[in-house]
Amino acid sequence: MKTLAIESSGVVASVALLEDGRLIGEYTTNHKQTHSQTLVPMLDQLRTMLQFEMKEIDAIAISKGPGSFTGLRIGSATAKGLGLALNCPLVEVSTLQGLAYNLYGCAGIVCPMMDARRNQVYTAAYRFVINENHGYDMKELLAPAALDLNTLITELANFEEPVTFLGDGAVAYKEALEQNSSFSFTYAPAASMYQRAASIAALGEHFFREGKGILAEEHQPEYLRKSQAEREREEGRGPAVKIEHGHS
Amino acid sequence: MKTLAIESSGVVASVALLEDGRLIGEYTTNHKQTHSQTLVPMLDQLRTMLQFEMKEIDAIAISKGPGSFTGLRIGSATAKGLGLALNCPLVEVSTLQGLAYNLYGCAGIVCPMMDARRNQVYTAAYRFVINENHGYDMKELLAPAALDLNTLITELANFEEPVTFLGDGAVAYKEALEQNSSFSFTYAPAASMYQRAASIAALGEHFFREGKGILAEEHQPEYLRKSQAEREREEGRGPAVKIEHGHS
Repeated sequence: MKTLAIESSGVVASVALLEDGRLIGEYTTNHKQTHSQTLVPMLDQLRTMLQFEMKEIDAIAISKGPGSFTGLRIGSATAKGLGLALNCPLVEVSTLQGLAYNLYGCAGIVCPMMDARRNQVYTAAYRFVINENHGYDMKELLAPAALDLNTLITELANFEEPVTFLGDGAVAYKEALEQNSSFSFTYAPAASMYQRAASIAALGEHFFREGKGILAEEHQPEYLRKSQAEREREEGRGPAVKIEHGHS
Repeated sequence: MKTLAIESSGVVASVALLEDGRLIGEYTTNHKQTHSQTLVPMLDQLRTMLQFEMKEIDAIAISKGPGSFTGLRIGSATAKGLGLALNCPLVEVSTLQGLAYNLYGCAGIVCPMMDARRNQVYTAAYRFVINENHGYDMKELLAPAALDLNTLITELANFEEPVTFLGDGAVAYKEALEQNSSFSFTYAPAASMYQRAASIAALGEHFFREGKGILAEEHQPEYLRKSQAEREREEGRGPAVKIEHGHS
């Protein structure tokens, strides 16, 4: 089976094609351009380079969040559009699990962290446990959540094991981690630090074979937290920029 | 500094751009097309997508081998051509070390294997050892060599530790590994199984900062073994396909 994966939950835009467990192609950019300018052109270039037709795709794996609201919406809209047009199922993969999967087989605890602003991170923690099929299973130690950095550090200290951090949160809060962590930790290397569609594709194929495919119209991004506009509306503050009626 | 990396030692063609330890872009295909048709177009598409100029490149990291003779020659020729045109230094990275670096931080022993035909693999073995700078150092346990599969299995058994295999040799000799290995082992996941220019870029930047840059004209691929044509010439067998003179 052929699985196309889309990852646009953060600054990274990434697409990948996996065929029966083999990575056929991956195209990733980590740049200031917006995903609306990059994601579809990258997919089209990859498709042309690999000489495959969109109708050959059996499943579309989508990085479902948490992450940037705009990034997730563009990725989701692209995946849903493709799924509807091709009559092809989607399969949702947690962005945090996808990030951690970059470090498959890593010793100790793997902790993906995405900068959620306001001194919070979207985070989780996993351990890779060797299985009987010459592979590793991912065991979830901390469920995906938006946490204050200090709460996360306290939680991780309880495990009394070395931790490997990755994701843009690990870069943004480097200083705080180094000052406040009582445990031994490392950072992921450049090649595995940020989101990769290849990891979303690999997990997506696995989940699809477990029967977790869904209809395109069923998919929704998972934000884990309310958007700034939603928070402000609930707090009765109104949107940050007021629309002046009668102003052309 | 900006490091451009080229990896074409096997079926995979891959290019990546790294800036001061941050992966800015990576484009990888693992397809039947020859590198002469893919490598430069992929580089050009990545350059356009990332809006960088070739003259901004500070160093070109090249996967120096071992691997496919044709693949290595195309990668080397491309890197040398760019280096000469841009007056930019090259930095050579062992293909096997690059492969192993895909599994940075992995528990146990990492063993990259590239199918060298005739029941041999280009291989090496590494261990990741935590260092004082929140990172890992790679310790070489077996130096790069072309080995018979059974010799490699015997060598690895001596370590009495779990081994993670990756590379096309791990796929080609899967059955033999499973039948003959007395030790516990796993395979790398799809996202890290084959060569990645991102790993060549990360190691290349590191080596360049250690002063290991060379002039473009100094670079030569490292084959580790003689080509079939060379072997046949030495054995007095002549080339496999004879050229018939006077035949138009």
